[in-house]
Amino acid sequence: MVGPEILFRRAQQSDLTDIVRLLADDPLAGDLESEQDVATGLLLPYEQAWHEISASEDNEILVATDTAQVIAVLQLTFIPSLTLRGSRRAQIEGVRVASKYRGQGVGTQLVEWAIERAKTKNCRLVQLTMDRRREQAGEFYKRLGFVATHEGFKQEIDPEDSA
Amino acid sequence: MVGPEILFRRAQQSDLTDIVRLLADDPLAGDLESEQDVATGLLLPYEQAWHEISASEDNEILVATDTAQVIAVLQLTFIPSLTLRGSRRAQIEGVRVASKYRGQGVGTQLVEWAIERAKTKNCRLVQLTMDRRREQAGEFYKRLGFVATHEGFKQEIDPEDSA
Repeated sequence: MVGPEILFRRAQQSDLTDIVRLLADDPLAGDLESEQDVATGLLLPYEQAWHEISASEDNEILVATDTAQVIAVLQLTFIPSLTLRGSRRAQIEGVRVASKYRGQGVGTQLVEWAIERAKTKNCRLVQLTMDRRREQAGEFYKRLGFVATHEGFKQEIDPEDSA
Repeated sequence: MVGPEILFRRAQQSDLTDIVRLLADDPLAGDLESEQDVATGLLLPYEQAWHEISASEDNEILVATDTAQVIAVLQLTFIPSLTLRGSRRAQIEGVRVASKYRGQGVGTQLVEWAIERAKTKNCRLVQLTMDRRREQAGEFYKRLGFVATHEGFKQEIDPEDSA
């Protein structure tokens, strides 16, 4: 279903503006990511995060692109853990697909690739949380083999050394 | 409520047997962690995970101890991310409190300490998932300020290079 012009690859720093635009193109991102960040060039916090992610062996950004731009993104984090008999887990965060490409298999293929990478990184479990307001995404993840066994709790905090 | 004999500190390698015993002392651990692992000295996978966690700047094991042994444990993972405007997240996994110490504030104090550490590590969000079968733990996390906004999906996979 995904056309031959769609490529799946690790993100590069030059994708960052496209990625932020994708994050902003999401009704739940609220006031956090915004098209204005791109328009006004306020990319510094994203660039700092990009450098931290790039420097980490345990974090990867995977993207899909068409001939013009990034059309889907996710972050993959590998977590060593004592539980599950000392198994590594892979965690998927920030899955976004450009609105005009939704329902065409791009997200499916990107997540399937993430699962394959998790296997090569010796993980025993892949996990993710989904905002309950993204109702349709629940069926999407179930079709991909995920089971909604857990409740996802979040708490915003104020970092001590924030600018 | 927590007595002065209870200490909260980063785990040391010499705590590993105690920690595995705690993980095994959990009805949901199923056939994964078991008292038998401790009895038969089958600690190798846990030791490998311990070394990986120790070598990682993004992972910490926090414990509470009484005068004799480890009585509570959790893992804290710091995750750089592009979402939330390039914010770092902290993730809590594998929270366990020894049965005879439950309901006495040990778990509360350990999670509160994890949240404090997340602040010093410049995180904007603390997150965790809870197996839905741990009904009582939901109230515990809500009292600690967490909100159950997400569904937690998991998928077991077979790593390619497993022994």
